[in-house]
Amino acid sequence: MTSVDLNSDLGESFGAYTIGNDEQVLAFISSANIACGFHAGDHNVMMKTVKDAAEKGVSIGAHPGYPDLAGFGRRAMAVSPEEVFNLITYQIGAIKAAAAAQGTTVHHVKPHGALYNTAAKDSHVAEAIADAVKAVDSELVLYGLAGSELVKAGEKAGLKVAQEVFADRTYQQDGSLTPRTEANAMIHDADVAVDRVIRMIQDQKVEAVDGHDITIQADTICVHGDEPEALQFVQKLRERIQQEGIRIERVGANEHV
Amino acid sequence: MTSVDLNSDLGESFGAYTIGNDEQVLAFISSANIACGFHAGDHNVMMKTVKDAAEKGVSIGAHPGYPDLAGFGRRAMAVSPEEVFNLITYQIGAIKAAAAAQGTTVHHVKPHGALYNTAAKDSHVAEAIADAVKAVDSELVLYGLAGSELVKAGEKAGLKVAQEVFADRTYQQDGSLTPRTEANAMIHDADVAVDRVIRMIQDQKVEAVDGHDITIQADTICVHGDEPEALQFVQKLRERIQQEGIRIERVGANEHV
Amino acid sequence: MTSVDLNSDLGESFGAYTIGNDEQVLAFISSANIACGFHAGDHNVMMKTVKDAAEKGVSIGAHPGYPDLAGFGRRAMAVSPEEVFNLITYQIGAIKAAAAAQGTTVHHVKPHGALYNTAAKDSHVAEAIADAVKAVDSELVLYGLAGSELVKAGEKAGLKVAQEVFADRTYQQDGSLTPRTEANAMIHDADVAVDRVIRMIQDQKVEAVDGHDITIQADTICVHGDEPEALQFVQKLRERIQQEGIRIERVGANEHV
Amino acid sequence: MTSVDLNSDLGESFGAYTIGNDEQVLAFISSANIACGFHAGDHNVMMKTVKDAAEKGVSIGAHPGYPDLAGFGRRAMAVSPEEVFNLITYQIGAIKAAAAAQGTTVHHVKPHGALYNTAAKDSHVAEAIADAVKAVDSELVLYGLAGSELVKAGEKAGLKVAQEVFADRTYQQDGSLTPRTEANAMIHDADVAVDRVIRMIQDQKVEAVDGHDITIQADTICVHGDEPEALQFVQKLRERIQQEGIRIERVGANEHV
Repeated sequence: MTSVDLNSDLGESFGAYTIGNDEQVLAFISSANIACGFHAGDHNVMMKTVKDAAEKGVSIGAHPGYPDLAGFGRRAMAVSPEEVFNLITYQIGAIKAAAAAQGTTVHHVKPHGALYNTAAKDSHVAEAIADAVKAVDSELVLYGLAGSELVKAGEKAGLKVAQEVFADRTYQQDGSLTPRTEANAMIHDADVAVDRVIRMIQDQKVEAVDGHDITIQADTICVHGDEPEALQFVQKLRERIQQEGIRIERVGANEHV
Repeated sequence: MTSVDLNSDLGESFGAYTIGNDEQVLAFISSANIACGFHAGDHNVMMKTVKDAAEKGVSIGAHPGYPDLAGFGRRAMAVSPEEVFNLITYQIGAIKAAAAAQGTTVHHVKPHGALYNTAAKDSHVAEAIADAVKAVDSELVLYGLAGSELVKAGEKAGLKVAQEVFADRTYQQDGSLTPRTEANAMIHDADVAVDRVIRMIQDQKVEAVDGHDITIQADTICVHGDEPEALQFVQKLRERIQQEGIRIERVGANEHV
Repeated sequence: MTSVDLNSDLGESFGAYTIGNDEQVLAFISSANIACGFHAGDHNVMMKTVKDAAEKGVSIGAHPGYPDLAGFGRRAMAVSPEEVFNLITYQIGAIKAAAAAQGTTVHHVKPHGALYNTAAKDSHVAEAIADAVKAVDSELVLYGLAGSELVKAGEKAGLKVAQEVFADRTYQQDGSLTPRTEANAMIHDADVAVDRVIRMIQDQKVEAVDGHDITIQADTICVHGDEPEALQFVQKLRERIQQEGIRIERVGANEHV
Repeated sequence: MTSVDLNSDLGESFGAYTIGNDEQVLAFISSANIACGFHAGDHNVMMKTVKDAAEKGVSIGAHPGYPDLAGFGRRAMAVSPEEVFNLITYQIGAIKAAAAAQGTTVHHVKPHGALYNTAAKDSHVAEAIADAVKAVDSELVLYGLAGSELVKAGEKAGLKVAQEVFADRTYQQDGSLTPRTEANAMIHDADVAVDRVIRMIQDQKVEAVDGHDITIQADTICVHGDEPEALQFVQKLRERIQQEGIRIERVGANEHV
């Protein structure tokens, strides 16, 4: 039976500041990428989010980012691969300890924002991330943009990888996401978006912006829950996935690990 | 054969900023308390310090502090026990990952500065620390001021604890350190300081400021290396300890763990 | 004609994080206390808030706090009076420049949170604040808790001061606010709260928790707008103030400055 | 009589961390660029440095940088021109207040590190900086790399500008500095460096790396004092400048302002 993972970024609140509807989102996803205190989140928010995810049976992932709270990790920064290794290691360690304190374990690692984007294209940064994941805990699943350098680096390092697709984004002929600065970057019609996701899961195909199909592997789908509309979309997507007889579960759930 | 541990705070540099002579100090100590990025240190400095300590055979400790880089963690802050649990967990996790990446392990935890002082007197904060250590890794040794609430909390939690003494500080009748604001807080004569340490190790006794002896357990001695004079004192102390036939080694080294 | 000032804390958002309904609150107040980037706010949020307040004719105030974004400045910190002088100076300067860039000026200074509370009781901290305000711009009005050490320090320094009262809080016999930890700290009935405020403005009297009246000067009233209920209360309070023939305007508006 | 300014970056210490020999350097320079708490420095260090510079008769400059203490502001960051306007405004304001508190004034603004480099080439960032300086205080002198976009933006905004040259760096044919990654980026021979500076001041000429002379205006020379060797170089440079009959003084000192 085919299965797919639904992941979402959680634990992004900080101190007195709240971002996201974590509680509601947890009801719809199989994997949570939890901010680790560098671009968002803090030790208190992380602990609570790990606890909440564990209670809901949602698998826990590290969501490490650049050390840039003011920019929410979305800002490109000239960080060397050596430093990327260190900051990935640090952030995974922090959340592994929170998981241990809650009697659970960390399942995966998905870099955040500008670091995710850089790792999709820059093989040195991608390898630094994969090496750090392997060095800290080689059982962790590395999440990366489908077809990206990060996926390649993970495979090269011998890690289990999960290729991630985006329901609301269009793709270029080379498999990269259309930059948000382009007019046709986003899919605004929810039904179209759902159809595209189902096709990616079932046929490993998606139509690129030039009208040609490209091959894509959809192990996990990134969903959002910060807006009411986004939550409705996730519900619609879940229903349709289930109607198609596809199981929603964390990556690797069916394996004998 | 009697043994004692010599510990020192390391890895306190941050970005372009350097504090301490870590390389030199590593030659003289058996245990390094490495800053974890909250009150000092960062992910790069921590990784390098863990690597250097491992190479020198010095045991690695987490040195977690308040989130106050500007105050170097020396400033009292109203942090709840619940938050203390979370920030201790976070920082231990970060350094455990760095140790894993360097093929080694973390041996102990010693809170820093204002958090250390608060934990010496406040049983709620002390218990939060002990609980966090236990939750993350119950094999870790908890370092605390000899006779303090932190030592009691560690014992209560079933952790191995190390009672710490200070060579250059005087003690009150109740076993607490004389506050630095008092004229007689410091021992300035190196020979006197060394004699007092030897007596603490061999006889579990030290003369308090009121002239009476108090009982004290000296599992580990805190030494500093940021000034040339401090380094000379450590050398002198080492020599004398060895002359007395006392072995310098990490806490628990002689056990079958 | 009697007048009173309505002030509120604004500009507390940070980067991607939003706190407060600043736009709505600006419609109801005469003075905005704008966060200066230490406990909340940042250079972008501050600039926008200064611009918005100026456009609405709301007078601009610096709202400096402790350097503790994680604790939103609500956490007691052991900060020396000398450092308080420096951090007040720094934060006032930052907002004065934003005001200059927007073609306007800063009108007042109100310390935030734990710093406000400390300054109400600790004459050294209060004097450090008053001295900093005077050193940077002696025309600024210093806002402090009615009857507090901060008000006294401001008067001693020769500054114009505004005594602040709270509509939703009860008072002790000595004029201090009942700590929030006490059961009777808050006034939950909006009508009672409004009546108390009117009496404070008109008669300089408020009933303390022991049932006796105390004298209090109400130059400015602190209001909040982060919850829908709070906004409704402000509207009710405004209406009643205006019905009583009291003018709502910034402190010192009727003077020939 | 010809004159030239010697400037140096000061006030870069932070909390318990010390960088630089500010006291010694102040004896040799005419202008201090003082860190403003974003990439280095803090409110305490800034206040002390402003005080020390004022006492030595050294003119005070704002040295604003990116909000990146961990990277010391040397790391390229994707910061929009609009945000650059805001962060320059904020930092100038902070130091203007410190200067006011010390009874003195700010004389100039020199961006730091990666922001300086970006402003040399990116006209949008350069204009944002010039606009912010003008908006806060149009009397401030804007320091920029000789011939750079920042100098052009300052002139376009109607600001007084100071063109800065580097004694220890080589120049490309287009007037830009040879990147430090190139083998011939640095001038290691102190005598050669001094000769080049004198020629830049007297003849507005310097030999580029391709052997041809280029025209360059040397209003101010950047010197360093963090290493004993650097301090010796500054002394040598000062002596030679004075031997040539060139006066060392802040930019604009001979004007009737």
